[in-house]
Amino acid sequence: MHATDSRPLAGVTVIDLTRVLAGPFCTLLLSNLGARVIKVERPPDGDDVRTVGPFVGGSSLYFSALNYGKESIALDLRRDGDRIVFEQLLDAGDVLVENFRPGVLERLGYGWTALHSRWPRLVYAAVSGFGQTGPLRERPAFDMVAQAMGGLLSLTGHPGGPPARVGVSIGDIAAALFLTVGITSALFKRHETGRGTMIDVAMFDCQLAILENALTTHLATGVVPGRLGTRHPNIAPFQAFATRDAPLVVCAGHDGQFAALCAALGCEAVVRDERFLTPDSRRRNADALEAELESVLRTRSCAEWLAVLERAGVPCAPVNTVADAVRHPQARARHMVVEIDDPAIGTLSVAGNPIKLADVPEPTGHRPPPALDADRGAIIAWLANRRPST
Amino acid sequence: MHATDSRPLAGVTVIDLTRVLAGPFCTLLLSNLGARVIKVERPPDGDDVRTVGPFVGGSSLYFSALNYGKESIALDLRRDGDRIVFEQLLDAGDVLVENFRPGVLERLGYGWTALHSRWPRLVYAAVSGFGQTGPLRERPAFDMVAQAMGGLLSLTGHPGGPPARVGVSIGDIAAALFLTVGITSALFKRHETGRGTMIDVAMFDCQLAILENALTTHLATGVVPGRLGTRHPNIAPFQAFATRDAPLVVCAGHDGQFAALCAALGCEAVVRDERFLTPDSRRRNADALEAELESVLRTRSCAEWLAVLERAGVPCAPVNTVADAVRHPQARARHMVVEIDDPAIGTLSVAGNPIKLADVPEPTGHRPPPALDADRGAIIAWLANRRPST
Repeated sequence: MHATDSRPLAGVTVIDLTRVLAGPFCTLLLSNLGARVIKVERPPDGDDVRTVGPFVGGSSLYFSALNYGKESIALDLRRDGDRIVFEQLLDAGDVLVENFRPGVLERLGYGWTALHSRWPRLVYAAVSGFGQTGPLRERPAFDMVAQAMGGLLSLTGHPGGPPARVGVSIGDIAAALFLTVGITSALFKRHETGRGTMIDVAMFDCQLAILENALTTHLATGVVPGRLGTRHPNIAPFQAFATRDAPLVVCAGHDGQFAALCAALGCEAVVRDERFLTPDSRRRNADALEAELESVLRTRSCAEWLAVLERAGVPCAPVNTVADAVRHPQARARHMVVEIDDPAIGTLSVAGNPIKLADVPEPTGHRPPPALDADRGAIIAWLANRRPST
Repeated sequence: MHATDSRPLAGVTVIDLTRVLAGPFCTLLLSNLGARVIKVERPPDGDDVRTVGPFVGGSSLYFSALNYGKESIALDLRRDGDRIVFEQLLDAGDVLVENFRPGVLERLGYGWTALHSRWPRLVYAAVSGFGQTGPLRERPAFDMVAQAMGGLLSLTGHPGGPPARVGVSIGDIAAALFLTVGITSALFKRHETGRGTMIDVAMFDCQLAILENALTTHLATGVVPGRLGTRHPNIAPFQAFATRDAPLVVCAGHDGQFAALCAALGCEAVVRDERFLTPDSRRRNADALEAELESVLRTRSCAEWLAVLERAGVPCAPVNTVADAVRHPQARARHMVVEIDDPAIGTLSVAGNPIKLADVPEPTGHRPPPALDADRGAIIAWLANRRPST
């Protein structure tokens, strides 16, 4: 399989102790890049999200979206027999990923010092709410806790209104992506050193890392950024506007785009207005600019304006629902919805891999999400067969 | 420098043609992981965000947040002399990153086929709004266009209210993170094959990839997900609640946490209520559950409840502002705010690297963000000195 698999992580084996979202999203991405992911689940129930609905054919869609392409074995790491199997997996594995609370794996005898001395090539990746160090290290966290603690919740929503959660679990997803970067970087480094490392990623830290200039600007100026509805904090016009019917997103940040926008809207006076002459003056006069542009945009429908602005080369968009987005011809052309034949669900549709590589064809025939312990027999047989060669 | 630098990408040289956000965020992360990043900027103005305010000491904070640690050289790729320098950089580089619109670099003579035949080891990473293929490939896009086209905008905000932008540029940032995973994976693979690859990441695709179960559930059930305020679509209670003063986030998804929450609030009747017996029934009766819990939570302040719930081990949080978040003792303990001595700004504070590695000390003494073309002399001298050895 490896010889004909051009994916970059083909040949890499990931031992995956993760549950719920941040960890499984990371190992899903590793799987999509070619790694073999062996999901080690705790009996008798396995990954917590197997019980989170909605369900189709008795299977959790939440679990399915995150765990296709992986294998499953149920192991209780407090039982000697299961520990032997787990240690054989570590003998065979390149990467161990977990998202327990800090200290849990150490209490089971698999802390970093123990792991690194026995399996020096193993890359050990841990993702947690607040990280392995610091006063909050043992504090439990889920997505909304990270969004709230890290400041993102305070920035999302309309001015004067309550904060809004980012509509996907960006607390988990950002951490999963940084963790994946850490893992692939550590595997790269291992070629040179022959040794693995430990990667410690905190959901909280990742929320700070994605604040980009909100953090920098606050610490330089003391101004506390707030909620801006659909506006960008630094660029205008860069937001959703009302039209006669549906909202229309327009991003015309630099002078050329702004001139093209004003010409397309037929409001040449705006482009000569001294309040709107430079990117910085447009940012400072964003209220006035919104009023000027919206008075014109309200005269026609969103679809009419989209046609006008697309012809003029002005970046613009409708506010697509998930239904619109997944059916867009661009999503189809990019293979961003993948169908998997699932014994319980029937046709399971999941998001494709957004990392397109010149020498890797779009994958087909993904394994369906595994039933708990579904691959025990095959995994045990593989471990038995590979033992003599190590 | 490389010999004493334990960071995983030490020794990797990145030739960076990117501007604005998605590309620079990616190369910032590569720099934080040890890569040398040479930012190739177009004269006479360089990266567009150098003109985006707010400014301190004449320097853009937006630019500074994304470009510290990098070197700058100004090259016009339409001029022969500058093309020679650029090609020497490609001789010396491991990775080329760009975020032009598809076709721009090819028209300059540096399309993938040309690059790969002349520099077969070079990893070429391109990030764009819609990708290198598909009907929208030439369409311009910025963050809000991606958030709107990909469905995330439609999911963010309060029910019955208008959509809200995610308060940071998650359209760019998600693409930057997937691109970085692609680059590090391709560098890993290159050890085996000796050859680079091309990575094609689209902001739009990345928005679909982070929809996780919103996409899967929609395609399985036909239900179009909408805006839920601060609620999670699949888990309850997992949201912000009103207290006597400020909002309080509580995430008590599984049975044990839910029982602990109800005990801490003194509402044991709720935990026995048949509408709330299982995670799935709590999800289905989230309105009623919110009303029950909020009637209790409104009786005391957010700070009082935080103390109670933290003692009870229930995941909870205040809605921190950016000011609260960056000054949190946990942020300090994790080195998530880094200070850089900048000639124009004075002390520039930026987000730290959230990928903590066991064998890598927290870096100090980052280079400040470069003035345009600031490193020309040193880069030209370095290229001249290395030429004989290639």
